[in-house]
Amino acid sequence: MGNQQVKTTTPEEITEAAVGSFDSCPDERTREILQKLVRHLHAFAVDARLTEEEWMAGIQFLTRTGQACTDTRQEFILLSDTLGLSMAVDAINHGKGADATESTVLGPFYVPDSPWRANGDAINIEADGEPVIVQGRVTNTADHPIAGAVVDVWQNSTNELYAVQDPSQPPDNLRGRFRAGDDGRFWFRTIRPVDYPIPHDGPVGEMLASVGRHPWRPAHIHLIVSAPGYEPVTTHIFDADSRYLDSDAVFGVKSSLIREFQRHDPATEPAPPGVDRPWYTVDCSLALEPAG
Amino acid sequence: MGNQQVKTTTPEEITEAAVGSFDSCPDERTREILQKLVRHLHAFAVDARLTEEEWMAGIQFLTRTGQACTDTRQEFILLSDTLGLSMAVDAINHGKGADATESTVLGPFYVPDSPWRANGDAINIEADGEPVIVQGRVTNTADHPIAGAVVDVWQNSTNELYAVQDPSQPPDNLRGRFRAGDDGRFWFRTIRPVDYPIPHDGPVGEMLASVGRHPWRPAHIHLIVSAPGYEPVTTHIFDADSRYLDSDAVFGVKSSLIREFQRHDPATEPAPPGVDRPWYTVDCSLALEPAG
Repeated sequence: MGNQQVKTTTPEEITEAAVGSFDSCPDERTREILQKLVRHLHAFAVDARLTEEEWMAGIQFLTRTGQACTDTRQEFILLSDTLGLSMAVDAINHGKGADATESTVLGPFYVPDSPWRANGDAINIEADGEPVIVQGRVTNTADHPIAGAVVDVWQNSTNELYAVQDPSQPPDNLRGRFRAGDDGRFWFRTIRPVDYPIPHDGPVGEMLASVGRHPWRPAHIHLIVSAPGYEPVTTHIFDADSRYLDSDAVFGVKSSLIREFQRHDPATEPAPPGVDRPWYTVDCSLALEPAG
Repeated sequence: MGNQQVKTTTPEEITEAAVGSFDSCPDERTREILQKLVRHLHAFAVDARLTEEEWMAGIQFLTRTGQACTDTRQEFILLSDTLGLSMAVDAINHGKGADATESTVLGPFYVPDSPWRANGDAINIEADGEPVIVQGRVTNTADHPIAGAVVDVWQNSTNELYAVQDPSQPPDNLRGRFRAGDDGRFWFRTIRPVDYPIPHDGPVGEMLASVGRHPWRPAHIHLIVSAPGYEPVTTHIFDADSRYLDSDAVFGVKSSLIREFQRHDPATEPAPPGVDRPWYTVDCSLALEPAG
């Protein structure tokens, strides 16, 4: 008879065989990742006592998820986001000291190379929406200003869409790059962002619906803040009035990132130039850690 | 200020938030599976300290895997197979008593409704290949014959391909259903199966190449054996002479399923009708457990 020593009968033996199959992987880090993936994936199957029908349903779900991806839609990132994996990876890589601004997900709507704008400029082209003045200061963790820090911002419009999703908006609407002054200060005009659902007409939306979860994210403004000699931070500020702060579909909210949008009334306060309605101010001060 | 109690800063807090998001899932089993999936998936990310670049490489790999799937190719099943997950699921669901025939993977080449054939028939249409007579007995675990048990078999040809993959073979080549006699016996003629690589021109093949694994499976004949009142078994018999018994790309080999193909020489033994070359016999006795 042939080899009688093949030990792949129990789930534990199969796990060891699959882990061992990567022993000769020439790249050490790839080997480590795949061996850990196999252990955790098998542990999941054993822990859940996954049936063959459930396994096949999973195969079909992953297949539909891959096939829903296009040049402008990344359904696997949505899946990672809605399972909390994206935020877990963010937390693993960007655990910050208590005094630095915390990070959160980049999201799928970032477009690099936003136009440079001057402090005080408006990033919104359309006239509707609630006027907002965002003002802040970029500092180090000892509260010293970081002159020339770059603040790259983007947000959605009143129709819930980002310009990159919406042919009816000019491509540069509601995004821009600002440079902090010598005192670390930056400020710009915009409109108030609104709550919006993540794309939910695909497999991830089906999953959320089937488990009784909504697809909404609380209103927020995205920021990437960077300066030479500091760790850049990718983050949001969240509108404290949103009803979804406790149930963000992608688990992106951190308490330290929630900001009050302060209401101002033109009947009692001098309005900024061009503003004829109640407007809001929001503080968006940001602290960076030294690089490395 | 808004809700200051959102606790999604550390990986552990994010895991708890993501697990908790499924608390209201109306289907209890779906909830259990997804909550366990989230825990194990996050544990993998934390254990590997997955970087954002590695996470993105994983997203892109899964996307390519989904997009490689077609009506006739299931790349996610190949991925599951090559990570040992398919065999682990099999083991979880078909842990057998010591006396029953062990199961192994179904594989992607099964086609239902094979033609019924009479014991002694050939399943091979082509003339080349090494002639084989497969003979066996279907019994219960107390060695009593199961009259009328159905043995559904399929295998590859000398060009490494199954009929379903290969337009040059008739669709019913090298597959068939047999019914055991009153003594539990069945037998048929075929050709010796050959080692073959799993499809490796896609993302799974890239993965295997990058980690220094080959894509080969040891030569085998597939069987699904069933009878009223018994648990059906999906299994293979493996050729004891294969060089890949220790390194099956999909971890399907179990020692109990390895069989010696016994060589016979027409110069010293009367050959079966139509056989003019050395031929082989292989014993393929099978034992089923009671249902339930």
